[in-house]
Amino acid sequence: MCRFVAYIGKPIMMYDLLFKPKNSLINQSVKAHEAEEPLNGDGFGIGWYTPEANDMPGLFVSVRPAWNDRNLKYIAPKIVSDCMFAHVRAASISPVNELNCHPFHYGNYLFMHNGDIEGFPKIKREMVRHLPENIYANIEGLTDSEHLFALFLHQLEKQRSKDLPTKIANALEDAIVDVEEIKARLKVKEPSYINVCVTDGDTIVAVRYVSDLSLEAPTLYYSEGAAYTCENGICRMKKSKNDFDKAVLIVSEKLTRYRSDWHEIPVNHMVTVNRKLEVNVSVIQRTLNTAAGF
Amino acid sequence: MCRFVAYIGKPIMMYDLLFKPKNSLINQSVKAHEAEEPLNGDGFGIGWYTPEANDMPGLFVSVRPAWNDRNLKYIAPKIVSDCMFAHVRAASISPVNELNCHPFHYGNYLFMHNGDIEGFPKIKREMVRHLPENIYANIEGLTDSEHLFALFLHQLEKQRSKDLPTKIANALEDAIVDVEEIKARLKVKEPSYINVCVTDGDTIVAVRYVSDLSLEAPTLYYSEGAAYTCENGICRMKKSKNDFDKAVLIVSEKLTRYRSDWHEIPVNHMVTVNRKLEVNVSVIQRTLNTAAGF
Amino acid sequence: MCRFVAYIGKPIMMYDLLFKPKNSLINQSVKAHEAEEPLNGDGFGIGWYTPEANDMPGLFVSVRPAWNDRNLKYIAPKIVSDCMFAHVRAASISPVNELNCHPFHYGNYLFMHNGDIEGFPKIKREMVRHLPENIYANIEGLTDSEHLFALFLHQLEKQRSKDLPTKIANALEDAIVDVEEIKARLKVKEPSYINVCVTDGDTIVAVRYVSDLSLEAPTLYYSEGAAYTCENGICRMKKSKNDFDKAVLIVSEKLTRYRSDWHEIPVNHMVTVNRKLEVNVSVIQRTLNTAAGF
Amino acid sequence: MCRFVAYIGKPIMMYDLLFKPKNSLINQSVKAHEAEEPLNGDGFGIGWYTPEANDMPGLFVSVRPAWNDRNLKYIAPKIVSDCMFAHVRAASISPVNELNCHPFHYGNYLFMHNGDIEGFPKIKREMVRHLPENIYANIEGLTDSEHLFALFLHQLEKQRSKDLPTKIANALEDAIVDVEEIKARLKVKEPSYINVCVTDGDTIVAVRYVSDLSLEAPTLYYSEGAAYTCENGICRMKKSKNDFDKAVLIVSEKLTRYRSDWHEIPVNHMVTVNRKLEVNVSVIQRTLNTAAGF
Repeated sequence: MCRFVAYIGKPIMMYDLLFKPKNSLINQSVKAHEAEEPLNGDGFGIGWYTPEANDMPGLFVSVRPAWNDRNLKYIAPKIVSDCMFAHVRAASISPVNELNCHPFHYGNYLFMHNGDIEGFPKIKREMVRHLPENIYANIEGLTDSEHLFALFLHQLEKQRSKDLPTKIANALEDAIVDVEEIKARLKVKEPSYINVCVTDGDTIVAVRYVSDLSLEAPTLYYSEGAAYTCENGICRMKKSKNDFDKAVLIVSEKLTRYRSDWHEIPVNHMVTVNRKLEVNVSVIQRTLNTAAGF
Repeated sequence: MCRFVAYIGKPIMMYDLLFKPKNSLINQSVKAHEAEEPLNGDGFGIGWYTPEANDMPGLFVSVRPAWNDRNLKYIAPKIVSDCMFAHVRAASISPVNELNCHPFHYGNYLFMHNGDIEGFPKIKREMVRHLPENIYANIEGLTDSEHLFALFLHQLEKQRSKDLPTKIANALEDAIVDVEEIKARLKVKEPSYINVCVTDGDTIVAVRYVSDLSLEAPTLYYSEGAAYTCENGICRMKKSKNDFDKAVLIVSEKLTRYRSDWHEIPVNHMVTVNRKLEVNVSVIQRTLNTAAGF
Repeated sequence: MCRFVAYIGKPIMMYDLLFKPKNSLINQSVKAHEAEEPLNGDGFGIGWYTPEANDMPGLFVSVRPAWNDRNLKYIAPKIVSDCMFAHVRAASISPVNELNCHPFHYGNYLFMHNGDIEGFPKIKREMVRHLPENIYANIEGLTDSEHLFALFLHQLEKQRSKDLPTKIANALEDAIVDVEEIKARLKVKEPSYINVCVTDGDTIVAVRYVSDLSLEAPTLYYSEGAAYTCENGICRMKKSKNDFDKAVLIVSEKLTRYRSDWHEIPVNHMVTVNRKLEVNVSVIQRTLNTAAGF
Repeated sequence: MCRFVAYIGKPIMMYDLLFKPKNSLINQSVKAHEAEEPLNGDGFGIGWYTPEANDMPGLFVSVRPAWNDRNLKYIAPKIVSDCMFAHVRAASISPVNELNCHPFHYGNYLFMHNGDIEGFPKIKREMVRHLPENIYANIEGLTDSEHLFALFLHQLEKQRSKDLPTKIANALEDAIVDVEEIKARLKVKEPSYINVCVTDGDTIVAVRYVSDLSLEAPTLYYSEGAAYTCENGICRMKKSKNDFDKAVLIVSEKLTRYRSDWHEIPVNHMVTVNRKLEVNVSVIQRTLNTAAGF
């Protein structure tokens, strides 16, 4: 089912985020605790933002398990960033391959997914049918995730709002509506599990979504507060005293045992974190209606 | 701790051996049942013999986990052989790397190991010090296992017996004695866990050894009988009716739940299978004495 | 532009074919002689047929250059086959990736390509639009080559001839017609360079094709005779004395300097080699007409 | 013979250094101009310094050719550093492997080599015999280069000078003397070609050395001036107006056609660049004497 971590806030070292927490993403690659399948050893990827290269994100992916990748151990300590994505994969249908590793990239956007659009092979061609050439050409792999990302990018071009966080949030919801509509049209009854995270480096939008509310949705949490810190092997989100230090984490499963640090995102809800690090949680109404239709 | 499978007997397909049993080596790469650490995802390797290329073995290794390697799925069905080795790795100290994947190869020999020579860094240079140039030059990786293989090859050159199975068995025992003697000389008190398997394509010798009998040794089993067969998803060793079909398996853990199919190799014992597929189990006396000395 | 070798005839060792000729495919991976771009270091692949596994082909691909792949050196001497494909890649648009390595595989078919369908991004979606689900689902990579293979597989299902070599040849021609028709319909004026080879293990069909005869087509040769042999470093096709030993090679460039060993396949012609190793060379009339139309 | 680039000075983007010059290191990986063997496609590596992680260098290596590595294209634009090493490999004896890729790393040191210590297999064990445990344990690969680095690290511990640049320069010379002495002692007559570069992040020392002055030494150049800049596809070292912008490059071959930008380092000379970016060129006297002895 994959596992991921997203961070936005005061610049911290990628290594601290990935390797140091008790239930770090690296440890989750060996043995996740809040997933049916504990093993996430089918490749991994990291993406991050720094002012260099016109704010384009950096990206490093590998088909090797995250726990034994030598390059990752050397690169992660040299990445200091205010916005980072990291993902460890448990492959379902699509082969283990560099081009199927999350996060996916387009322009200044990064996108990662933990879930399954079941029945994807039946709707794949319909998903790409109306994409503009540039967005279609950016699809390099075979995953349902990357195709959902393409729908998101297409919807993003259509948004009228002038507020970027609103545009991103609406485009993501629209893309999920697209998926459910295409499925309905093609009589695909399998459910979609869409825990997804997208960013442009300034805003993060995350969704916890399932087509059928009677099914169990994969977990998704966020944590907010002052700077996320790792000291003497203990990593915690400090309580916020001032706005300067604020940080937000969005994670597939809790990185620590301190339950009070983590807020569960309700099923079929969306979390938006803007550049002021304000967190907004809202329900995804429309997709519910669409998916409920069959 | 790694897991391995060795096969000798009537030619069978590598795919049937690796993928089909209930507790196949591929399944053990995800979740081994008779090891403390269930995960063996740090690369793998296969070796096999056919008449081509002057009986030299074929070899295929990868740093990717065995469970998701696309090439393995394509190659294994095309290998039909009367003598095969396969190994999935759980790395201890040495990095995950092609050159650290078992089985190791020299001339017509293959060698694989499940265990640890603890304290290896302290004795490594002493282990290679007296090796002849050709054997030393063959060491390409960093593992204790490959260095033990080099000692074995050196001891093999010194054997006087004219019976090849006896030579191989004695050389393997001598190599383990070498390790314990070097450790004693350099005051290295850490134990050795040596479950090891070596073959020249005609004879297989396997050892289950631990320096200190009060410690628990990793498991090692053998199975003998008529042809090993996989039918309708059930893989079993058939009872032997004639010699023509005979086959012997040596495995880190039982491939099936049929307990009667598997004989546990006693700790500090050695199993020799000759080209007539006769199985001989004998105690390793000398190494015991050496290791007991400290 | 890529380079390839296809062999059908008396079983020989893959190693002899790939490594031993003066201008072997391995040497062509470093420095091809009959191509504008001499370097073919962007991955490679081999496919071969043996009776095992219901005649399904074996396959081994890698993103590493063919000249330094350790596994290839170990596997090639253990492959003895009567029908083999090998390909070294010089990537054009599509990324260097396992899934973009030739030969491509479906059922008992293998397919490899040396050339470019220029303007491919513009016709890609149209190429897959009418494919049956099973053939569409088999497309794992991004290359024009694999998409042409899918069109071929689709056309193969439509053939009425009862003679398999004829079916394969016609389906290949029909697939090329499809490409040119789609290009014409979508007003894509870029030319196609299609040197392609397909086999089911019994029959090989190869095409040397270019959309516009005023353009230079990449070279393609065949060689036929008695057994292909490598002795004392010299590899030659022996003259045929009896049918038993016959063999046919199809190659992007001449493997040796013996010009008389190699027949140039004329531009826009097709070579069919059936299971009796009869070679038939014929013109590709229809595609010429189509492509000439714009 | 490999190719490398070292940079120290005003922080610049790794991408500009590696990809933009006319004869960039990436282009040299395909086709070097000042080497007998133009192809350097057997893996590559980059190392760099930033204040993070206690000034330890970052490192990224791959067995894939530098020209087609997707990760490199994403990482290089995000690296902005005042001290960078980059190396593309043409393997001689040692296998193409991550652990054989330069630069090699120990503590805050990076080391890379373009050349060959011929006869290395004969002196390898003698080279490591007297190494302290920590330095010996750091050797992970098989190259002559990494073993020379180990001798350098050992000599570094013995230096008495209090000036770090002097210590590094002397240790490097001492290590080369060590090699020549071991060769003389073991009657190894093959020459050493040692174009080598070492840094601690503040000082770079480079050597152009050959055992026998009648042999041709591989080229080595340096360039100094104001900031190295790439504008409109033209990369040049600007003339220095003030000290603030100063930068120094050390390269296997000239990156541009502007001959005046590049100073050839004379054979058996050493270049030291200190943290003030002062460049000192001096002869290597002692090693000459030693090597001249046989």
